[in-house]
Amino acid sequence: MSDKQGIFELGLGQNPANHQPLSPISFLAWAEEVYPDRTAVIHGDQRFSYAEFAGRCRRLASALSQRGIGKGDTVSIMSPNIPPMLEAHWGVPMTGAVLNALNFRLDAPTIAFILNHGEAKVLITDKEFSPVIKDALAQLGRDIIVIDIDDALATSGELLGEMDYEAFIQEGSPDFDGSPENEWDAICLNYTSGTTGNPKGVVYHHRGAYLNAMGNVAVWGLNQDTVLIWTLPMFHCNGWCFTWAVTAVGGTHVCLRHLETEKVFPMIRDHGVNLVCGAPIVLNMLVHAPDDHKVPFEQRVDVYTGGAAPPSTVIAGMECMGFSVVHAYGLTETYGPSTYCAWQDEWGELDLEAKTQKMARQGVRCHTLTEQAVIDPETMQPVPADGETIGEVMIRANTVMKGYLKNPSATDAAFAGGWFHTGDLGVMHPDNYIEIKDRSKDIIISGGENISSLEIEETLYKHPAVMEAAVVAKPDEKWGETPCAFVTLKPDAADVSADDVIEFCRGHMAHFKAPKNVIFGPLPKTSTGKIQKYVLRDQVKEL
Amino acid sequence: MSDKQGIFELGLGQNPANHQPLSPISFLAWAEEVYPDRTAVIHGDQRFSYAEFAGRCRRLASALSQRGIGKGDTVSIMSPNIPPMLEAHWGVPMTGAVLNALNFRLDAPTIAFILNHGEAKVLITDKEFSPVIKDALAQLGRDIIVIDIDDALATSGELLGEMDYEAFIQEGSPDFDGSPENEWDAICLNYTSGTTGNPKGVVYHHRGAYLNAMGNVAVWGLNQDTVLIWTLPMFHCNGWCFTWAVTAVGGTHVCLRHLETEKVFPMIRDHGVNLVCGAPIVLNMLVHAPDDHKVPFEQRVDVYTGGAAPPSTVIAGMECMGFSVVHAYGLTETYGPSTYCAWQDEWGELDLEAKTQKMARQGVRCHTLTEQAVIDPETMQPVPADGETIGEVMIRANTVMKGYLKNPSATDAAFAGGWFHTGDLGVMHPDNYIEIKDRSKDIIISGGENISSLEIEETLYKHPAVMEAAVVAKPDEKWGETPCAFVTLKPDAADVSADDVIEFCRGHMAHFKAPKNVIFGPLPKTSTGKIQKYVLRDQVKEL
Repeated sequence: MSDKQGIFELGLGQNPANHQPLSPISFLAWAEEVYPDRTAVIHGDQRFSYAEFAGRCRRLASALSQRGIGKGDTVSIMSPNIPPMLEAHWGVPMTGAVLNALNFRLDAPTIAFILNHGEAKVLITDKEFSPVIKDALAQLGRDIIVIDIDDALATSGELLGEMDYEAFIQEGSPDFDGSPENEWDAICLNYTSGTTGNPKGVVYHHRGAYLNAMGNVAVWGLNQDTVLIWTLPMFHCNGWCFTWAVTAVGGTHVCLRHLETEKVFPMIRDHGVNLVCGAPIVLNMLVHAPDDHKVPFEQRVDVYTGGAAPPSTVIAGMECMGFSVVHAYGLTETYGPSTYCAWQDEWGELDLEAKTQKMARQGVRCHTLTEQAVIDPETMQPVPADGETIGEVMIRANTVMKGYLKNPSATDAAFAGGWFHTGDLGVMHPDNYIEIKDRSKDIIISGGENISSLEIEETLYKHPAVMEAAVVAKPDEKWGETPCAFVTLKPDAADVSADDVIEFCRGHMAHFKAPKNVIFGPLPKTSTGKIQKYVLRDQVKEL
Repeated sequence: MSDKQGIFELGLGQNPANHQPLSPISFLAWAEEVYPDRTAVIHGDQRFSYAEFAGRCRRLASALSQRGIGKGDTVSIMSPNIPPMLEAHWGVPMTGAVLNALNFRLDAPTIAFILNHGEAKVLITDKEFSPVIKDALAQLGRDIIVIDIDDALATSGELLGEMDYEAFIQEGSPDFDGSPENEWDAICLNYTSGTTGNPKGVVYHHRGAYLNAMGNVAVWGLNQDTVLIWTLPMFHCNGWCFTWAVTAVGGTHVCLRHLETEKVFPMIRDHGVNLVCGAPIVLNMLVHAPDDHKVPFEQRVDVYTGGAAPPSTVIAGMECMGFSVVHAYGLTETYGPSTYCAWQDEWGELDLEAKTQKMARQGVRCHTLTEQAVIDPETMQPVPADGETIGEVMIRANTVMKGYLKNPSATDAAFAGGWFHTGDLGVMHPDNYIEIKDRSKDIIISGGENISSLEIEETLYKHPAVMEAAVVAKPDEKWGETPCAFVTLKPDAADVSADDVIEFCRGHMAHFKAPKNVIFGPLPKTSTGKIQKYVLRDQVKEL
């Protein structure tokens, strides 16, 4: 016997009875078997039970399969958070194909680039996006099957394709069955928004999608009474894998075509929503919504936020309305959530300031994340867990992408040394919580000292007149770089000068960290709502 | 490119950053990182935080490793539900070795057989079991490292080995680190109790143990506030994988050396226990405990029972005391729980009788069980989901054993046709819930009609004087077989005759199903508390 396990290997191999590929596809059959009559999806006046929803997913798979779509093919979808988008998360991978959910805020050239780079054979597209899609298709230079979503709640647009989605899935059989041959097979292709250059195509595998969804179940205690409202775009890491996780437990998806606070609050009340996900900008919208939008609700609503640390004022504002906020952290490359700021009972005794400081950290690894560390990228050794020494956050887990599509050099760089390099700089606190201090390129080096732009932004957010803030490095002959702040004031804010803001910062942090310049106005944003610091950096050079 | 996934495979292979073996070992490091100060283990006056508990597990691994124990070796343990038993669930597999938890009710020849068949190199043994272990070691015919557990709560016994467990782990380093090279590696070896012949050695893999534990987390919504009292022997499918599952979420293990109701109720109250597992016999003990043992408690306590369907009177009795009972089903070969009787809201409207009938079914698959079916073993086709047609319950899942150790013919038979054959006969109800009607060999065929011995037993349990009941086939010249009931009456039961019992059964079921004979007295049981029907069958031949 060559294997070291000797007697424990002999005649004890894998077979279909004891080894099955892990895949989130399996969650749908589970929900259908156990809770066939429970509500899977709510969209406007539409309701689909799990039996109906599963039937629709299988019809989609069958219809795609009849068009020759199968293993290794790409199906793209341009859709808001409505049923066809959710159905694509099962219907597409059931055929063996790969789902490519497009960011609906992208422009036509980028969409054309993605459709060609990802080699999409089918595009399912909501009519509201027909202007940009029409343009992108014209730039494509090849044929592609186009299926229109003609949603009753769409407010505009035209039909571009050969057929409507509802007619298309009627072509398919509700008895279609499919699962991957191998859990390492690709399931999704998600393009990074990319602040510069062409977006990169992040390839997910079935194993990772299954495990990240199960991790969400464990972190959140999801169950059949979970009701999630889709304030987070599903194109964003497949809705941080909550598309699959909510289904894994037989919970309810509340669809949301447009993020409008006058609709969100009544929906939370009426549908018994108890889970909300979204970037801090979503929380910001809820907190700053007009008072007459803020319909009260009785249930406890968990809020999972990530993408940037929620300012403490936002956490406090959300809690006042009955939301319970937890901060999470992840990247497109890690299927969304990798870490979360697990609540510790003793924090309940802290004052609001100290408590929200704890809560704003990126936190500890989700149950399904194998390893996370803050590492010196030069030595590849962990930095001390002192809350001060900055290193790069690195991850090892089954919930890390296969790699970047057709981009071996980027893939190799991302996995150098056997760790996934997040590109985020952070510290490890003595209690094993990580805190991101900045993206590598967002650190400001002034007079040889590292200054975290995030730290300055957090201070700016404490100013009562500040609604949004971003800080970048301004080249400086004397200091090398100095911090320059871009600030959007609240609509009803009193007159505030740049000097007022600088003085406020100097009163709340080390003087050398305070911004030297403050510029007022709206902030440029990417299609996913991230502030485009590279645009600000360009502006700063012209100051 | 040879692979059908084409662009989604090229340069997108596995590496340490994106692929790590699934193993329940990883749960310990998680709990230690996230909840170092929370109570992991309570045993009498002892308390171990997760930091302390993890340190003890790593010391054990290190000490074993220093003795040359590693991959492919077997470490056996004979222990009640106390900290060393729990620690062995990490300390042993961390070295790469396989944990063999022994049933402490076995006799010396069977223990000697298991130690030799499993090729154990180390035996960790609690002194209370020294009489039987001394005997077994004498029969072993070879040397083995023996480590004694000298627990302060042990009431008797002598030390047999070279060293005490506490001294042994002090030899080890708390910095030991270990994880499996491959998730298919063996982690545990659990012998079936076997009603006849030698027990079979069921081999578990790391992947299955990880997934069944995560399945428990999903089914039960386990979290850091979970407090489990160990009424279920940990040797039984590794405590149905709750050893790992409770740790996976940072919950608390309440150890229990002996199952005594006068201790269990106060412990439930004092430690805030909210989860209890055990066979129906455990529930029976709790229900029939003297009133002065039944200390009231305020929290809701979930009870997970399996091994046999809980009689409706027991479910009702438990609910009266504040327990919420869910029935589960599984086998040693499936890491314990495979299915559970998921509650459906509409059952709340049923009367007690109808409700407990629903609840006594084995139910639907746990989230991590890939497929379960009731299959005609001749045709290997599923039977109709009509609640009547009997077939064999079969399973396909990652939570099925690797196979039986050194027993290829039994392994092949168990996996024939690519399904794990449970040997249990059951029906599929129209709502996708399975119900076990009998073990293959427990069906009674009378006048050509199949009679379920379980159905008769369920009827017998409804008789107010019956405490325990078992039914077997009695050979009969006219009918082929007839049902013969063995009954233990409640201590305080009024005088009841065999005719009274038969008449009661005829009043509650089809007459041909009612037992023709009733014999009163105590029932013979296996070491795991299962009624030994083969003993009753032998008795019946002599009637």
